[in-house]
Order: sequence, then C-alpha cells, then structure tokens
Amino acid sequence: MTERWDGLVVGASLATLDASDGYAEIPDGALGWRDGMLCFVGPRSELPDAPEALADDVIEAEGWITPGLVDCHTHLVFAGDRAREFELRLQGATYEEIARAGGGIVSTVRAVREADENGLLAQSLPRARALLRDGVTTVEIKSGYGLNFDSERRMLRVARRIGQQLGLRVSTTYLGAHALPPEFAGRADDYVDAVVEWLPRLHDEGLVDAVDAFCEGIGFSPAQTRRVFEAARALGLPVKLHADQLSDLGGAALVAEFGGLSADHVEHTSPEGVRAMAACGAVAVLLPGAFHVLRETKLPPLDAFREHRVPMAVATDCNPGTSPLLSLRQAMQLACTHFRLTPAEALRGATVHGAQALGLPDRGVLRAGLRADFAIWRVQHPAELCYWLGGDLASAVFAGGVRLA
Amino acid sequence: MTERWDGLVVGASLATLDASDGYAEIPDGALGWRDGMLCFVGPRSELPDAPEALADDVIEAEGWITPGLVDCHTHLVFAGDRAREFELRLQGATYEEIARAGGGIVSTVRAVREADENGLLAQSLPRARALLRDGVTTVEIKSGYGLNFDSERRMLRVARRIGQQLGLRVSTTYLGAHALPPEFAGRADDYVDAVVEWLPRLHDEGLVDAVDAFCEGIGFSPAQTRRVFEAARALGLPVKLHADQLSDLGGAALVAEFGGLSADHVEHTSPEGVRAMAACGAVAVLLPGAFHVLRETKLPPLDAFREHRVPMAVATDCNPGTSPLLSLRQAMQLACTHFRLTPAEALRGATVHGAQALGLPDRGVLRAGLRADFAIWRVQHPAELCYWLGGDLASAVFAGGVRLA
Ligand SMILES: [Zn+2]
Ligand SMILES: [Zn+2]
Repeated sequence: MTERWDGLVVGASLATLDASDGYAEIPDGALGWRDGMLCFVGPRSELPDAPEALADDVIEAEGWITPGLVDCHTHLVFAGDRAREFELRLQGATYEEIARAGGGIVSTVRAVREADENGLLAQSLPRARALLRDGVTTVEIKSGYGLNFDSERRMLRVARRIGQQLGLRVSTTYLGAHALPPEFAGRADDYVDAVVEWLPRLHDEGLVDAVDAFCEGIGFSPAQTRRVFEAARALGLPVKLHADQLSDLGGAALVAEFGGLSADHVEHTSPEGVRAMAACGAVAVLLPGAFHVLRETKLPPLDAFREHRVPMAVATDCNPGTSPLLSLRQAMQLACTHFRLTPAEALRGATVHGAQALGLPDRGVLRAGLRADFAIWRVQHPAELCYWLGGDLASAVFAGGVRLA
Repeated sequence: MTERWDGLVVGASLATLDASDGYAEIPDGALGWRDGMLCFVGPRSELPDAPEALADDVIEAEGWITPGLVDCHTHLVFAGDRAREFELRLQGATYEEIARAGGGIVSTVRAVREADENGLLAQSLPRARALLRDGVTTVEIKSGYGLNFDSERRMLRVARRIGQQLGLRVSTTYLGAHALPPEFAGRADDYVDAVVEWLPRLHDEGLVDAVDAFCEGIGFSPAQTRRVFEAARALGLPVKLHADQLSDLGGAALVAEFGGLSADHVEHTSPEGVRAMAACGAVAVLLPGAFHVLRETKLPPLDAFREHRVPMAVATDCNPGTSPLLSLRQAMQLACTHFRLTPAEALRGATVHGAQALGLPDRGVLRAGLRADFAIWRVQHPAELCYWLGGDLASAVFAGGVRLA
C-alpha cells in the first residue's frame, strides 16, 4: 500500500484547466494531496482505493473545484483611502481640483510614508484577506507608493508579512518607478538613478521577486524604463511593465526585448507589440477594473492576442485610485462584460495565465505533481464564477493542502 | 430612570440620511433601541447616561453605521441558472441560437415549474443571504417565473419563507404579467385575464404586497398593463412597473395615473413621464446591473429626475438573465460608474428611497421612532460603500434590533 495522502476531496466536479483551452472538466472528480502537492486529479471512479483507505481527511464536496486563483497584478499595500476623491470626481470636480484638495497618488504616497510598518500591515491585510476569501491563493503585490528607500522597503516587507500571516503565496514586485515623488519634481532622471540604486539593496534583503515600471507619458519614458530593466537584468530579476495603458510608447516590445514576464494594461499595444510579445512568450495582463472605473473605451487588441496565442491573464489591479477591486472574480466579470472574454478565457486568465505572468509553473492548473492550491465553489457551472457580481461563492480555499478559508 | 434599552452601539460614525440630501453625518455617534425600534440616534456625547447604565448589550463599534439597506427590486426566487447562456452569448451565439439551445426566460420558467417549494427555497435562500450579509435588511421579491397559478403561488410562498427564515423583511410583488407563457402563445389578452383572475386568490392568502407588470414591446401593452393595475386597485394593492426600459411606452405616466409606488428601469422615460412621476410622488428605481450586463448606452433622464425632485432608488434587479447581482453595494457601484450618481445619491437610493419605493415609511433612515435596522461597515468614509467592487465590508447587520449577520 502506498503512503497515505494528507487529504482528499470527492464529489465536486473539477475544472482542471489542464488543456490548451476550455475548462478541461472532470465531472464527479477527486483531488488528493500529500506534502502540499496534488497526488491525484481525476474522476472519483478512478481512485485507486476506497477514499477512507487513502486519506484520513476525506471531504465530501459539492459544486466545482478550480485551481486556486492567481491575482498577478495588485497594489494592495497602501494606507489611507481615496473614496473621498471618487466622490469629488462624481460631484464634478476636475483632476486639478482633486489635486488641490490633496487627492491623487500623492495623497497615497503621503499616507504610506506616514504609516509605520504595523499600521500599513493592519490597513492592507483585510484587502488580501478579501481576495483570499474569494478564491485567491497567490497574489502579486507591488511597491510604488513609498518612492523613497525606506518606504518602498516598508511596503515590500509588509507584502511579505501578508503572505506569512495569511498562508498565501505573495510575489513581490519592486515598482520604484511608479511615479515621480514631489522631492524629485523636474528631475526624473535623478529619481531613476535612485530607483536603480535602491534595487540591489532591497534585493539583498530578499524583498524583490520582480521589477516593474510605469512607462507612460505621465510616468517614465521608454529610455528611463530601459535603465530600470537593465538594473533588474544585472541581478537576474524578471521584469514586467505597466505598458501602453493610455498611449502606445512601445512598452510591450520593450518587455519582449528583456524577455519579461508580462506587459500589463496593453490597451494601446500595437500589432508589432503583440508579435514581439508572442515571440518571447510574455503574458498580456488585462486589468478591466481600471477600464471600468475610468470608463475607458479603447479595448486591448484581444483578437490579435488570440491570433498570436499571447496568453491573456486577468488581474484586479487592486489600488485606491483607479481600480478598487477586492475580488478577482469581479475582475473576471468585468473582463467578460467589457472585454468580451469568454468565461473560460477569464478563468484561465485568473489561474494558469496568471501563474505564467508570475513565472510560477507549479500552480494554476489542477495536475498531480503541482501545488495543492484550489478553491471549492458553490456553483452549478464554472461560468458562474464570471457571471455573478457580489456574493460569497467560495465554500473553501486551500493552499499547499492547507485550508485557508 | 427610564426603561432599559435592549441594545446600544457606540463608537462608530453615523450616516443617518435623515435630511433632504447628503449623508446627514454624526461623527462618534450612538444608536440605542428598544422593542425593535430606535430610541436614540445622536452623538455619543449626548447620551442621557453612561452606556452601561442604559443597556445590557453595549457594542463598541468602529467605522460607519448606515440604515439597513433596502433592495426594492429583485427576482431572486428562481430555479436553475443561466450562466451557460451568459457563456454562449460571449461565445458569439445570437439570441435565436440561445433560445434554440433552451435558454432565455423560458428556461427559468421551466425550472421554476419543475421545482417543488422546498427545492425552490433551497436554491433561492443563498441569494437572499448574500444580500443580507452585504447589509440588506429589507428586500422586495417578485413572482413572474411561474406564469401559472400554482407556480406563481409557490414563488410568493417561498419569498415569504425566506423572510421568516432569515429575519429579513420581504416585500412580495405579484408579477404574473412578466412574460407570456408558451401555452398562451398568441393569446396575450387571455393570459392577462388569467393573471387578473389569480390575483385576488393570491391576495387572499396574504401573498401579495404589491403588483407589477412588464410593459414593453416584448412584454405587455399599456392597455394590458392597465387591466392588471385596475385589478390591483380593486383590491387596494399598490402598483409599480417595469417601465420604459427598452422603449418609451408611457409606462411612467401610467404608474403616475394609478398613484403607484415606482417606475423601474426608466431609461427611456420622457420629460412628460418624469413630470407625471413628480406630481404623484412615484420613485424612479434605477437598475444599473441590467444596464451593465446588457451594455446599454441610453441613460435614464437623471437630470430631469433631480430637477423635478423625483426620488431615485437603486436596486439589484437580481435575476438570472440580465442582472446577476448578489450585492446591493455592487448596484450602488454600478450606479456611480455608469449613471454618475454621487455616492450619497446611491446610498440614499439604497435606503430611504428604496423604502419609499416599497411604501415603508418606518425604515431607510436612522431616526428615533423608526425600526432598528442598520449595518455597521468597516470603512473610513461612507463613499467607500459605492467604491469597492467585492470585499466583505459589513461587520454586523441588525434588523429590528436583532443581529442577523
Ligand atoms: Zn497597476
Ligand atoms: Zn426586474
């Protein structure tokens, strides 16, 4: 007899996603794991033995099981809130008036700089917990509201602590080149020098899994982004980019040139950019929350991504200014509604392609040998995950075989 | 000394909504109740005594307290789901193809007719529970998927049982004139005869609080609607209407003529319709969920409603075909994003104006003498209730002074 499994779920249907498209469904499935990894994924009828002989902990489930969701783009560590700014905007205030009233990203930067590490953790933890309760087992978290060494470091430390505290896998991204801090006004190149100088120090502390920048007319130029990317490459760190959100600066091609993980937003990416991404295997990360809240109309080149088989991920972009999403499922709903993704595409975007965008091949599908990260959902069809707005659909969430919610 | 209170909450700020606009905020407030009714609403500093001398049960809260939310338009009692249809649509299927594949409202009618009362309750209860967990203490539920006497009756009985089981106030609406059932194809007037004949029998059983119809080119004509309204008037029942959603058939004016509670959807309501509503005091019920999912572009005449002081309510329209919303907060978010309501307007729409749309003057604001229905929210500003998509923001929900969530 083989070694006993640590756990086994039976009775639910599986959307394994372990195929090149669609859900890869297994009706009346079974999922077994040992040492945090899946050791059986298949129809219940093919279990090698009676369930109680295989594992001590046998769970009778209903509904559907998917891989644990992967939210590959968030800014969820921050202090303060911007709901008041949202209100001012709806009352008709201009961006200038909001800035004069102390709003905009600088208000978040100020709040983050003023918060101590425990305070920042206390404010950010409920957001990560909300994602987890809705099925997320892996979450990327960016810095980028500190914009000085100590505050960027504090954000990344808080991101790591969130992972430890909740049992989630947190992938950290250094986004020093997010915005120009007030003390560097008119000196963007000097600020990029500082960003590049801080990187190895943060990396030495084990705080950086990847490097990102905001390449945009209102952000950093392609030349400045390139300097940040070169610093990442010197340390062997993968890159990703806020690319082509508001205009086409060739961000996607720049990611491709550096063999990056992903180009994110990509509403204005050109056909050349799409081809470059396809050639290097970069993921297109779609962020429909910002599209929704900003009421954008320019769609990403979805058909070109499909044609060139560029994997499309879907993420919350959880941030206080433009994408106040506390649920990856809601991002999937918005991706279907605004971008006309099919529910299967959206679910793949929040699992297998999200994992690919983080360079984590050990998750994102249900397959023996990969991590026992999964969510059990109270639904009759996996399309429901992209259909409902609101609600409490996850009946259980496991990461590494441990029940987290 | 006065009689002791049953409960008292201190420490949170109050958005009482007890004013003609805005939040009517009370920072550091206190809320006391006895026999299910509020007996104190004011600043903590004005409590007549020390808290522990006033009530046995003193709750120290944080964040904000609002009136319990009122969802004044739902179709949440149904069987089956239409997620597969949602998927087919996103895969490019036409409405005709979906109908041929067994989709559309007839698929819900079939599932409702096949479900027994307990099965229908079991399927519907989680939806009501999701609304409750997100702050709803009063919910309207319509019939309209049965379309024969027994099935309409079963839907209304299930609606009543939901209220009993969860402790929510359920307001029932008879919507026999929702769609033409297949067995009446080509005989709409005969079906309206039947609808009118069933009404007093359902009313005799105490199952009907109000009467509604779907007045539209693809629904029932104004003349048919009028017959349904006359039957309601004969029984002293208030009316409301699915009015002017896809075209202007003068539905809002028809509601006004009958002194109705509300005209709902109202995207295509004319200036005359708005004036008629204003004259009779009818509420305009905005349903941004269907607007979002159907990707509509025609906005309701919001400025005209404001100018003529027609109260605007916001509701989920929770239904499986066009508005899969399980959270009234999400409807508020969509009302702000798509309709540019201010957060205060959206919150008033989900409380005081929602209550007005149901003819329930005993709720919807925090005021001594009204019901102790309230929600405590983990937010720093009430605008956050309209800002976040997803998340679990309600830390407690009370109805009639009883904690329900
Ligand atoms: Zn971002
Ligand atoms: Zn409706």
